[in-house]
Amino acid sequence: MAVCVPKGYLMAGVHCRIKRALRNEDLALVMSETPAVAAGVYTLNIVCAAPVTLDRSRTPSDRIRAVAICSGVANACTGEQGLRDAEEMARLAAAACGAEADQALVLSTGMIGVHLPMDKVAQGISAAAVKLGRSETSLVAAARGMLTTDTIHKLAGRTVTIAGHEIQITGMAKGAAMMGPNMATMLGLILTDAALTPERAQNALGAATEESFNCMSVDGHMSTNDTTLLLANGAAGGEPLEGDDLAAFQTALDEVCVDLAKAIAGDGEGATHLITIEVGGCADRQSALQIAKTVANSPLVKTALYGADPNWGRIVSAAGYAGVPFNPNGVTLRLNGFLLYEKGSPVEFDGQAVSASIRDNRDTLIQLEFSEGTAGRRFWTADLTAEYVRLNADYHT
Amino acid sequence: MAVCVPKGYLMAGVHCRIKRALRNEDLALVMSETPAVAAGVYTLNIVCAAPVTLDRSRTPSDRIRAVAICSGVANACTGEQGLRDAEEMARLAAAACGAEADQALVLSTGMIGVHLPMDKVAQGISAAAVKLGRSETSLVAAARGMLTTDTIHKLAGRTVTIAGHEIQITGMAKGAAMMGPNMATMLGLILTDAALTPERAQNALGAATEESFNCMSVDGHMSTNDTTLLLANGAAGGEPLEGDDLAAFQTALDEVCVDLAKAIAGDGEGATHLITIEVGGCADRQSALQIAKTVANSPLVKTALYGADPNWGRIVSAAGYAGVPFNPNGVTLRLNGFLLYEKGSPVEFDGQAVSASIRDNRDTLIQLEFSEGTAGRRFWTADLTAEYVRLNADYHT
Repeated sequence: MAVCVPKGYLMAGVHCRIKRALRNEDLALVMSETPAVAAGVYTLNIVCAAPVTLDRSRTPSDRIRAVAICSGVANACTGEQGLRDAEEMARLAAAACGAEADQALVLSTGMIGVHLPMDKVAQGISAAAVKLGRSETSLVAAARGMLTTDTIHKLAGRTVTIAGHEIQITGMAKGAAMMGPNMATMLGLILTDAALTPERAQNALGAATEESFNCMSVDGHMSTNDTTLLLANGAAGGEPLEGDDLAAFQTALDEVCVDLAKAIAGDGEGATHLITIEVGGCADRQSALQIAKTVANSPLVKTALYGADPNWGRIVSAAGYAGVPFNPNGVTLRLNGFLLYEKGSPVEFDGQAVSASIRDNRDTLIQLEFSEGTAGRRFWTADLTAEYVRLNADYHT
Repeated sequence: MAVCVPKGYLMAGVHCRIKRALRNEDLALVMSETPAVAAGVYTLNIVCAAPVTLDRSRTPSDRIRAVAICSGVANACTGEQGLRDAEEMARLAAAACGAEADQALVLSTGMIGVHLPMDKVAQGISAAAVKLGRSETSLVAAARGMLTTDTIHKLAGRTVTIAGHEIQITGMAKGAAMMGPNMATMLGLILTDAALTPERAQNALGAATEESFNCMSVDGHMSTNDTTLLLANGAAGGEPLEGDDLAAFQTALDEVCVDLAKAIAGDGEGATHLITIEVGGCADRQSALQIAKTVANSPLVKTALYGADPNWGRIVSAAGYAGVPFNPNGVTLRLNGFLLYEKGSPVEFDGQAVSASIRDNRDTLIQLEFSEGTAGRRFWTADLTAEYVRLNADYHT
C-alpha cells in the first residue's frame, strides 16, 4: 500500500479542545524511533509565525525525533510570548518521545494573534504520546490533527525500491485557504525511511516544493505559517542516497508533493473545481509560472469557472497583465480540450458543450500556448465560489 | 453647480440595443464645438482592445472634436476586424459632429472577443447626434452610456477660477469589475474648458491618474480596455495655463479623479463597503503603494470586512507578503480608528464595537503604520461579497 507509515515512525492524532468543534482532532504527534534527518521550507512572509522561526533555526538537522502539530491557533503575531510557547511545545513533544528539548519541531495553524493555550497543548501531547502507533487509524488521525477548514484529510505516498531497499515516502498536508503562490508552502509533513544527508534532504525538499506547493494557490494570500518538513530516518537501510538512487527518490518525492498540492487546491475553501493551468511556448520557465499564477489568481477567471462559463476573454486578459512580454497574436487557448482562441483570434465553438464539460467535471484544464519559446509550467488552483466568501466572512465570529 | 457640462461641449446618451437590457443607455457621444486638446492614459495590459490601440495613436492631440463611447461589447481580442471597426466608429462619430475622420476618439467596454455590431453603433451615433445638448439630462445620459454592471452613474466636477477665468472640470467614469491596480485606468472621460497645451494636458492627466485610478482596485484584474481621456477645449478663455495657474488646475483635476476613483471602488460589483487603506511610515511612496495594493487585493481581507469581522491578522499578514522589507515589530494597525495591533503585538480591544463600526458604515478605514520612514499612500477598494461571485459566475450566460 502506497500510503502507510514508513518504517521507524509512530504517530497519533487527538482532540485536546484547541478547536471548538467537539470531535475534530486538533493535535498530532509524530515520533521517529531514531534521530532523523530533517529539512524544512518556510513561508517568505515577513510577518512569520513563531513555529516558523523556531523550525527555521533547527533545520536542516540530523537529529530530529519528534514533530508536534496543532490546529486552531496559528501562534502568529504573538511576539516574544509566542516564541516561548513554541519552544515549550517542542520541549513537551521531545520529552514525550524521550528526546532532548531541541530534537523536536512544531507546526501550528489557525487564528492569528491568539496565544497558544499551553495547558491544552500539554494535555494533548500527553494524550497523543500514549496513543502512538503505526496503523492506518493512527496515520489518518495525525493527518486530521493539522486540518482547519479542510473538508478532507490529505495523504499521499509512494513505495519505491532503490538500491535494493524498499523505501516509503508518505506525506500529509493541510490547505483550505490563505494559500498563496511564491511561498515556501502550506503545512506539510513528509516522512520517509530513506537514508539522506541533511544537505540532500534539504535540496530534495526544495526541488519538490518548487514544482508542487509553489505551483498552487487557492486565494493568493501568503500565510504567516507555511511550512513543509521532510523527515528521513534511514530505517529502510543502506547508505545515504546519491547519484541515480537519489534521482529515483526525488522522482517519488516529487510525485507525493504534486499529489498533495493538487489535493490542497481541489479542497480549497468552497471549491467546486480543481483547475489545472498548463502554460507552454514561453521564453523561460519563470515566465510560464508568472503567467499561470496570474491566471490562477484572477477572481474573474475563478468565478467564471464556478459558473461553468467559457469566458475565455478573462483568461487571455489575465495573461496580458502578468508582467511577461509576449506577442498577443501568438496566443492559443484551449479549455478542457476545446479550442477557444487561436493565434490571437476568436474561434467559433460550441459554448453549450464547453459549458457542460466544465459543469460536469470537477477537474478543469486550461491550456495556454504562446509563441515565444519552448518553456512550460503547470499550476493548480480552485474556483472562487459563494461558499468561499461565506466561509471567510464568517470565520472569526 | 460643480457637476455640469463645461463650456463648448455637447453630449448625448442613447440606447441602441448593443446591451440586451431594454432601457439602458449603451452609447454616448461627446462633441467639442472647437478642436480640443486631448490626452489619454491607457491599460498596460499586453492584450489591449482595438479602441485603446486607436486612441493611443491619436493622443496627445490638439484637434479632437468627438468621443464616441459604447458599452456591451469591448471590441477586445477581435483581431484586424476589431481595429477596422474602431476606426469606422470614430469616423461615424466625427462625421456626426462635422469633423474629419481622425478627429474622433472611441471607448468601448463589455464582452471580450465579440465584434462590434456596427449597424447598431451607426444607428446609435446618428440618434445621439440629434439629441446633443448641454443639460443635466444630457450629461447623465452620456455618463450612463458607458456603464456595464455599475449600479449608479459616476460624475464628479469642480468649478475653479484661475487667472480670472471660471474653469469647469467634469469627469464621468465606469467601473464595477475587471478593476486592477497598476493599470492606466478604467473608462473615464474628463472634460474641461480650460486652455492647456497637449503636453501639459498629458502630464496633468498622468499625474492625476497616478494618485486616483492607479490607487484603486476592485478585483485586481487589469482590463484590456482601461482608458481615461482628458479633453480641454479652452472655451473658458485665456492662454494655455502654466506655473501657479497650472498647479491650481492640477489640484482641481486631482480632486475630480479621486472622486471618480472612490465612486468606482465603492460601486465595485457586489460591494457593500468602500475600503480606504492608508499606509504610512514607509521608506518611499512606491513601497507604501505596494503594501496598500497587496492588502487591497487579498480576498481574505475583503471577505473579512464583508463579514464585519475585525480579523486584523489577515491585514498584517497581507502586508507581510507585499514584497517590501519592513520591521515586523514596528507595525501598528488601526481599523475605523480602533487600535488593534501596536508595534508588532496584539492589543486588547472591544471586538463587538469594532465589528459594529464596520457593519454600520459603508466607509471602512484601514490605517497601517510602519517604522521605516515617512512616506505614505492612500488606496481604495471594495469588499468581496457573495454577490460579486454571483454576478461574475453568471455574467456570460
